Amino acid sequence: MKETLLKMLLTAGDDFVSGEKISQAIGCSRTAVWKHIEELRKSGYEVEAVQRKGYRIVKRPDQIKPHDIQVVLETERFGREITYLESTASTQTVALKLAQEGAKEGHIVLANEQTSGKGRMGRGWYSPPGSSISMSIIFRPQLPPQKAPQLTLLTAVAIVRAIKETTGLDSDIKWPNDLLIDGKKIVGILTEMQADQDSVHSVIQGIGINVNHQEEAFAEEIRKIATSLAIKKGEPIQRAPLIAAILKNIELFYDLYLQHGFSRIKPLWEAHAISIGKRIRARMLNDVKFGVAKGITDDGVLLLEDDDGKLHSIYSADIEIDQ
Amino acid sequence: MKETLLKMLLTAGDDFVSGEKISQAIGCSRTAVWKHIEELRKSGYEVEAVQRKGYRIVKRPDQIKPHDIQVVLETERFGREITYLESTASTQTVALKLAQEGAKEGHIVLANEQTSGKGRMGRGWYSPPGSSISMSIIFRPQLPPQKAPQLTLLTAVAIVRAIKETTGLDSDIKWPNDLLIDGKKIVGILTEMQADQDSVHSVIQGIGINVNHQEEAFAEEIRKIATSLAIKKGEPIQRAPLIAAILKNIELFYDLYLQHGFSRIKPLWEAHAISIGKRIRARMLNDVKFGVAKGITDDGVLLLEDDDGKLHSIYSADIEIDQ
Repeated sequence: MKETLLKMLLTAGDDFVSGEKISQAIGCSRTAVWKHIEELRKSGYEVEAVQRKGYRIVKRPDQIKPHDIQVVLETERFGREITYLESTASTQTVALKLAQEGAKEGHIVLANEQTSGKGRMGRGWYSPPGSSISMSIIFRPQLPPQKAPQLTLLTAVAIVRAIKETTGLDSDIKWPNDLLIDGKKIVGILTEMQADQDSVHSVIQGIGINVNHQEEAFAEEIRKIATSLAIKKGEPIQRAPLIAAILKNIELFYDLYLQHGFSRIKPLWEAHAISIGKRIRARMLNDVKFGVAKGITDDGVLLLEDDDGKLHSIYSADIEIDQ
Repeated sequence: MKETLLKMLLTAGDDFVSGEKISQAIGCSRTAVWKHIEELRKSGYEVEAVQRKGYRIVKRPDQIKPHDIQVVLETERFGREITYLESTASTQTVALKLAQEGAKEGHIVLANEQTSGKGRMGRGWYSPPGSSISMSIIFRPQLPPQKAPQLTLLTAVAIVRAIKETTGLDSDIKWPNDLLIDGKKIVGILTEMQADQDSVHSVIQGIGINVNHQEEAFAEEIRKIATSLAIKKGEPIQRAPLIAAILKNIELFYDLYLQHGFSRIKPLWEAHAISIGKRIRARMLNDVKFGVAKGITDDGVLLLEDDDGKLHSIYSADIEIDQ
């Protein structure tokens, strides 16, 4: 009921929706409509009420509860099931548990605050309450495990598109899983999977986005390497429409991928990748290699050509671009 | 104490070990030694006792409890921690749980009976009580997920060696994970993993071996495609020494692999593989391909050359060899 009302008001945008129209649509009295509007106000919406015109939303709260997402969601599967948590240690852990209990593809876990978010290689990910997007998505592709890393690249492309659509900002991809704006980190993607030698059972993808962080929110040493969408845009960003746009683009590219393979995703990824063609430094666990990033393979492996012209396959590394 | 006693008797083989020597070694009275011998008898060992000579084992029970394995184990890590279950649904499920709780590399789960053993592609694996080996092994390699399927190939080689060492029987490998004797299935390997895009977190390898099954134990339609070591050897096989030999060979090849890479394992695998160089039929989920199996890639992918000379990468399939 509340969702139908919210959807009507949001769809109308700056236009008023009359109380009569609402009461007909949701089949309740005008007094009941008024009560629902009061509820909306309590949950943070600023609703203007003008006699003979009706109601309109003046300001949305930056909330990411299931109904905030679903009223603007344009997907068929992704985000249709949402597990929302006000605060949790890690959305990845929650999503993994749900997947093991049989949660379907497209089920997402969202948290308003992550107290010990997971990054790559056992690192942490900083996600302060209210200003981040901390989301984990369950995929169940019929894929050999060797191909699962392709999903990280696919999601990177989807998020670049979603950020562009909702904020107008351009972002770059740094292999394998970082999104940067002007060289500073804005998005991290962590892809975890359960698989046997024949097929992936489930992939849990964690997405962390710095949305409304102020400069002061970052520790001194982090400020040099990370930024937020709000800082870059110069105004606060609504998280719910961004999440919906990400899910829409993921569903779009994922369906394309399942039907036509990685060849449809790879050129899009390469178009947004900053490291390709440049001199890079690849820091691996026990080694550092210098050379030119030539491209990626169909399995998402980075190809680096060293100064002797020898080609190396980089499976896992931190990449720095030589200036 | 019981373990020291058992080890002394097993090491002595057909020779007698005097009660005095035993009482000195384990620091107890001759009467206590006699009590321990009685315990061994109760657990199924036939122990001969001759005055002035001492004790010797005439017949070992075919048991696979932790001490049965560990008295003959020659490894440093693999099998040093054993979780033994008289009966369980699937050793894979138990091992996965242990791995998630932090169990170390080399920890194994053994069951005397598996009531719903897991095979490849969601199939079952038949493992009747007492006559099978149902074992799951926890690995924690620092490997990119793309390379994890190599561990299936490594284990296949290790088991071929262990079977040869303990029974003298020759077995063949059918890509990716079956061991056959005279074309009939004797061993299945299921490799499951948890990983992120950079690295494997844990690999749980399930090994199912038909050891002492009689012909009648197999259903009519299974009898055509499966057999047991005892049928092929014409006599019962002790499971504990076979398990110890498998663990020894796995540790050996795994250390070689970690130090020098897959190039040390691949030629061994190819030497035992029956499909390579032959015309095969690869049944995939949505497709069947015919052609000649040319070899495997470094990621364990099977290369099939069709009649037009086109090379196909086979990630997951059932292979039949054209006769």
